[in-house]
Parts: sequence; C-alpha cells; structure tokens
Amino acid sequence: MTVVEQMLETYPKDLGQVDQGKLSACIQACIDCAQACTACADACLSEDKVAELTKCIRDNLDCADLCDTTGRVLSRHTGYDANLTRTVLEACAAACRTCGDECERHADMHEHCRICAATCHRCEQACQALLDSLGPIEQPREPA
Amino acid sequence: MTVVEQMLETYPKDLGQVDQGKLSACIQACIDCAQACTACADACLSEDKVAELTKCIRDNLDCADLCDTTGRVLSRHTGYDANLTRTVLEACAAACRTCGDECERHADMHEHCRICAATCHRCEQACQALLDSLGPIEQPREPA
Amino acid sequence: MTVVEQMLETYPKDLGQVDQGKLSACIQACIDCAQACTACADACLSEDKVAELTKCIRDNLDCADLCDTTGRVLSRHTGYDANLTRTVLEACAAACRTCGDECERHADMHEHCRICAATCHRCEQACQALLDSLGPIEQPREPA
Amino acid sequence: MTVVEQMLETYPKDLGQVDQGKLSACIQACIDCAQACTACADACLSEDKVAELTKCIRDNLDCADLCDTTGRVLSRHTGYDANLTRTVLEACAAACRTCGDECERHADMHEHCRICAATCHRCEQACQALLDSLGPIEQPREPA
Repeated sequence: MTVVEQMLETYPKDLGQVDQGKLSACIQACIDCAQACTACADACLSEDKVAELTKCIRDNLDCADLCDTTGRVLSRHTGYDANLTRTVLEACAAACRTCGDECERHADMHEHCRICAATCHRCEQACQALLDSLGPIEQPREPA
Repeated sequence: MTVVEQMLETYPKDLGQVDQGKLSACIQACIDCAQACTACADACLSEDKVAELTKCIRDNLDCADLCDTTGRVLSRHTGYDANLTRTVLEACAAACRTCGDECERHADMHEHCRICAATCHRCEQACQALLDSLGPIEQPREPA
Repeated sequence: MTVVEQMLETYPKDLGQVDQGKLSACIQACIDCAQACTACADACLSEDKVAELTKCIRDNLDCADLCDTTGRVLSRHTGYDANLTRTVLEACAAACRTCGDECERHADMHEHCRICAATCHRCEQACQALLDSLGPIEQPREPA
Repeated sequence: MTVVEQMLETYPKDLGQVDQGKLSACIQACIDCAQACTACADACLSEDKVAELTKCIRDNLDCADLCDTTGRVLSRHTGYDANLTRTVLEACAAACRTCGDECERHADMHEHCRICAATCHRCEQACQALLDSLGPIEQPREPA
C-alpha cells in the first residue's frame, strides 16, 4: 500500500460516497505530475535550444502548481465540498492537457518531455475519472 | 507603485489585450488572500472552541492553496493561454466564495474571521472582474 | 523505475558529483511526506479531540510546506548551488523531526499519526543521508 | 494597516516575545518577494537572450518557493517553535541572497531583474532582522 492509500485508509471519519480507489489514484497522479513538471521545466532550461522551449517551461510551471494544489485539496476530507473539488479538478485537468500536449510536441527531441507528457496525460485521465465518479453537478450559489 | 505593478510594467514583451489594472489588482488580491487564509486557519486553531471551526480551517487551507497557485499562474505571461487562465480564475473564485461565506458565519465571534471574510470576498471580486475582462470563451479541445 | 528516477535519468546535462540514488530517494521522500502531512492535518481536524491536536496540525502544515519546497528545489539541477541545497535540506530535516516527534506522541491513539510519524522520520533520514553525501561545507559569503 | 498586520493584530492568543513589527514586515517581504521572483522567472523566459538567464530563472524559482513557504510558516503562531522558525529563516535568507546577487548581475540589462534584485535584498534583510530579534539559539535535539 502506498502512503497515499494508507493515509486515506486511516481517515477517522466517513469519506462519503467518493470512490476511494479513484481518489487515491488521482492524488498520487497529481503529486507525481507536479514533480515531473518541476523537473521537466528545469531540464528544458538546461537544453541548448532553451529558446524554443519557453512555452513548454511556462506550461510545466503552471501544471506543477495546479497539480500541487489539487493533490492538497483532494487530501482534505473534513468539510468536503463536491462543487469546489469539481472546479479544482477541472482546472487541473486543463493544465495537464495543455502541458501534456506541449511536451508531446518535443517528445521526439527530448526524453524528459516524453516522460513528462505521459505523466501529464495520466494525471488528466485520473482527474477526469474522479470527476466522472463525483456524480451530477449541484447548482452553485450565484456570485455576488 | 507596488512590486506587483512594477514587475508587470517591466515585462519585456507585449502583454496582449489583458487589462493591466485588473490583472495587477487580481494578483495582489490573490497573494493577500493566501496569506490571510493561512493566518486565519492558524488563528482558528488557537481558539478554545476549535472544534466548531474545523470546516472553516479546511476552507482556509484550500483557499490559501488556490490563491497561491492563481497568483503564480497570473504572474506568468510567456505563452499565455486565456482558457487555462479562465479555468484557474473560476476555481479560485469558487474557493474564495466558499471560504469567505464560511468565515462570515464566524465574523461576529472572531475578528480574524471577519478580516479574512472581507479579504476572500475582495479576492473573489477581483477574480470575477478579471474573468469578465477576458472576453468570450474559446472552445477547448475535447479531452482524449 | 519511478517517475522521479525517470526524470533524473533523462536530465540532459551532467548532474555533477551528487549521489543520484540518494537524490531520487530524498525527492520521493519529500513528496510522500508533504502529502502525508497534509492528510494528517486534515485527519486530526476531524478527530473529536481536535483541541488536543492543534500543535500536531500546525507541525503537519509546516512540514508539508517545507517538504513541498524541498522536493522542488531538489528537482532542479540547472545552476546547482550546494550551499543553498544544504540549507534547505537542514530546514526540511528540522521540520520532519519536529512533526515526526509530535505525531509519534499521538501514534497510539491515531493510526494516521502513526503512519505520518513514520513517513516524517523516513524523510528526515533521507534528507540527512543526502546532506552527508554532499561533502564539506563551503564558506558562504557574509550577509550584507 | 495591511492585511498581514490586521491578521497579526487579531490573533487570539499571546504571540510570545516575538517583535510584531519585524514579524509582519518579514511576512510581507516574503510574499512580495515570492511574487516578484515568479514574475522575474517568466520575464527572463520571454527575453531573446534567455539562454544567458537560465541560472537566474532557476534561482528565481527556488527563491519563490522558499519565500512562499517562509511566509506561511511565519503566519502560524500556534505551537510556535523558535528553532524551526530560525532554520527556515536562514534557508529563506540564503535563497534571497543567491537570487538577489544573480538578478543584480543582469540589472543593467533587464529592468525586471533590477526590481527583483531589490525585492530579494529587502527580503533577505527582513529575514535577518527577524532572526536577530529571536534571541539566543537553543540546543536542538540530536538527529536519530
């Protein structure tokens, strides 16, 4: 059992109707993807043709931040709010898609981009799978 | 001029059609709100009736993470992607609304919740104002 | 091979004299520990006796932030600076020791604290092992 | 009064012997510096001669992460631990010094580096001033 699974297993209250397998897979995918994107941004920085990789680096940095935050939000169950979780998962999936597509474009040239693209696409899918399992959207309160 | 405004002013390339005033106001609101939420979570922790504030603490922690990440994404302009910005701003506004409403409920009892609620609502409005200025939504690519 | 190891393997320049096994183990320990601490803070929040766990929650939050940042700094190799790495590792080890000791005190009562304590102590050891492998301290420039 | 000062003012328990003015100044310096470094990394990425700025970008990213974490740790007072605070402040001051010195080298060429260098040096000084006010070092427990 991974640490993520152990921490989920020992949460002292009811986790509600969330799919525990999809939740722990998504948390793990988020923390793996955050690290891969941080490392890929740095690997791009060290490439001789860094000037061709500036959009890739920016997408890596955004994706790392989104995945980090999503992994944290998903690790909290007290006072759980499905609507907030849904919005955060959508933002994370969007960041992973953008970054994964950009890394993909450089995958033939740079092994780090190839691995990072695969990690981003896995994380996007894990976010989407968890989103699909959360059920129908409740109507949010209108913004003031 | 604030540091946020100075950094925006000295960005070496064109910032595109974004409203610079709304952008710098939103970045500032995000970093102020992230700090207020971190401090409010801790102030709640030190209250004698902490058991009544656990949802508030959780909302504070989520909101701090979302605001932090949003302030970072908005501070990046290279390879700008309006659709990603929009999704992140929506997630941040949702976190600020949830946290601001929860803090509001404790504002009569706890001064830190009153200040944090006001900071969250200001940040929600700054996100909304920037969102409104970003113009019509482009159709995102279908997820794989 | 883990994602951390793959990203390290594909870094395009020379990694210098750092011990790659100890480096990847430390990055992995940091990201696991950051997640465990975030989850443990939340699990503590949901305990009926949360009032007895406020120091534990605070230590969890500090440790999560330090481990997150350390995992990021260690994932960057471009323009590597052994002195900065050393200082960051010392701060991370200190946070893990403080948090691991505090969680340990609650390990008999709370399974999440028991697992989190073990994760913190593993991370402290991984930081220490990497620190030991970095060799003699160079004299830092005097602060202004 | 800034939001940082208001949150400090409304903390419900005793803050101990810490110098409140130096503490709020340091928190503010950390969050300003984190934002400036994130923006400077991105501005460097958009420079035509980005290949000459890769160490600067890396230092910016490290400094942003350290300042973010330090601002968070300093915003927490419950279960305060002077030794951990000291270690974190030392790591943050080291990151600010490294980044400020590197940005300084590019200050004549790039306005964003000039502003970022000044922000880093202000943050280093704020960390040092708070460190100096924390009093004599207690002997930490030996690592296991």
